Amino acid sequence: MTSLRNEGPIGVFDAGLGGLTVLRALHERLPLEDFVFLGDTARAPYGTRGTQTVLNYAHACARVLREHRIKLLVLASHTVSAVALEPLAGELFMPVLGAITPGLSALHAAGKRRIGVLASPRSALSGAHARALAALGAADAEARVLATPLLPALADEGLLQGELPRLALRQYLTPLLSQQVDSVLLGASSYPLLAPLVEAELAALGCGEITVQDGVAPLADAVVAAVAARQLATARTDPGKLRIVLTDLPESFAAADRYLGHDIKQHSISAVDL
Amino acid sequence: MTSLRNEGPIGVFDAGLGGLTVLRALHERLPLEDFVFLGDTARAPYGTRGTQTVLNYAHACARVLREHRIKLLVLASHTVSAVALEPLAGELFMPVLGAITPGLSALHAAGKRRIGVLASPRSALSGAHARALAALGAADAEARVLATPLLPALADEGLLQGELPRLALRQYLTPLLSQQVDSVLLGASSYPLLAPLVEAELAALGCGEITVQDGVAPLADAVVAAVAARQLATARTDPGKLRIVLTDLPESFAAADRYLGHDIKQHSISAVDL
Repeated sequence: MTSLRNEGPIGVFDAGLGGLTVLRALHERLPLEDFVFLGDTARAPYGTRGTQTVLNYAHACARVLREHRIKLLVLASHTVSAVALEPLAGELFMPVLGAITPGLSALHAAGKRRIGVLASPRSALSGAHARALAALGAADAEARVLATPLLPALADEGLLQGELPRLALRQYLTPLLSQQVDSVLLGASSYPLLAPLVEAELAALGCGEITVQDGVAPLADAVVAAVAARQLATARTDPGKLRIVLTDLPESFAAADRYLGHDIKQHSISAVDL
Repeated sequence: MTSLRNEGPIGVFDAGLGGLTVLRALHERLPLEDFVFLGDTARAPYGTRGTQTVLNYAHACARVLREHRIKLLVLASHTVSAVALEPLAGELFMPVLGAITPGLSALHAAGKRRIGVLASPRSALSGAHARALAALGAADAEARVLATPLLPALADEGLLQGELPRLALRQYLTPLLSQQVDSVLLGASSYPLLAPLVEAELAALGCGEITVQDGVAPLADAVVAAVAARQLATARTDPGKLRIVLTDLPESFAAADRYLGHDIKQHSISAVDL
């Protein structure tokens, strides 16, 4: 039994373009579903803003996505997930899935108990990772959350090899390693591109056994499970469409292509004012 | 002869906190004047946004400053100066001074003809530096403008020494040096803090004779000249007041203190929604 509601798209929201990694993973898993991705590129990054500002921006963006008649909202932004998941979930008449819990849950299920997190300043201050572990019943695990304000520019600029990103990463990994973490969670939407570099740097520091986890696959799997559990799947059998809405259109789509993994211009791209 | 208008404050506008370096230089030169500094910290940085977005934000911020009855507007943001100086100057009934022309003028007066500029992506794309040189009658000089998206995070985080900022700077200075520049203009409001590092790195690269110029002193001097020429000086003889208005109050004022050069909490700090 499907309803009209089932034919709405799935909404994916991020401050910037990093969340296109989540859109890609969702499109691969749910190829029949339509998606609307909203990137608030006119006001990114959120991770250095105050809580109230992030809340204001998140509410405004959720309103835009509701106008697209989305049936489910995916928060690809870890900062938004850290401070706005509960208010949005309490207000929208649809399931809202955040980026923080799935990655922590995957690491806990894999037996990790001392989880280092590379995060935005706002996420680090929010206490959201400790709350998420508690809500998961993972009282035996701890999250060591570090603000990593230099990493978003490296990811957005595609500076993914060489001495400069290695030095920047080492500066953040060293304090985590001194706290004997057994895993590193890439806790921001643009960080999945940094995964090979984090793994290489951990190996160079003699810690190659440490698990590196990005939040993308666990979040996408959680969305698939939610679509099934809430009986929200589309009844259509033709390929789903991707629609990209940005608050500020970039000069170049190079960064978008890197995050999405293919040419973003194959899809509908439009601008919206907020 | 002074009028009521002369008793209004001077407005200083920047996207972020870097423009506090300009506020400091102005306060030193015009100690009797009142100042209102507006930092659009909820939406900084502007340098990666599209032209229309920067224009929209600049107009909104100019409206806020007009409510403070400013008598003169100083654009500390090089990005705003690059794309919004003319529209703002054409619209506001007061003098509007931008950050780009004074620095270029100072270098040209010092005999520099091949000026390398470290700038935001938006400033670099705008062509504003070439237009400013033409307007100065400096057709014998050229500006080589380079987008430097990694530098604002270094300045804002106070990462002003060590291998990481040196490598980041070297990556940008090398292409400028290969074009035989005779001077380097620090073309963003947060870059004055990087001046010692740029000088050290140029010396390390065997180019210690290259002049490094930030835009702060030339802009402040231009404001002093404009206040005199337009007869806008206050008639008061008690010390002027600084008022700081931010669209997003930071968790810590460490960066603000670095840019201002003293404890910002000595002054009136308030938040405004845009």
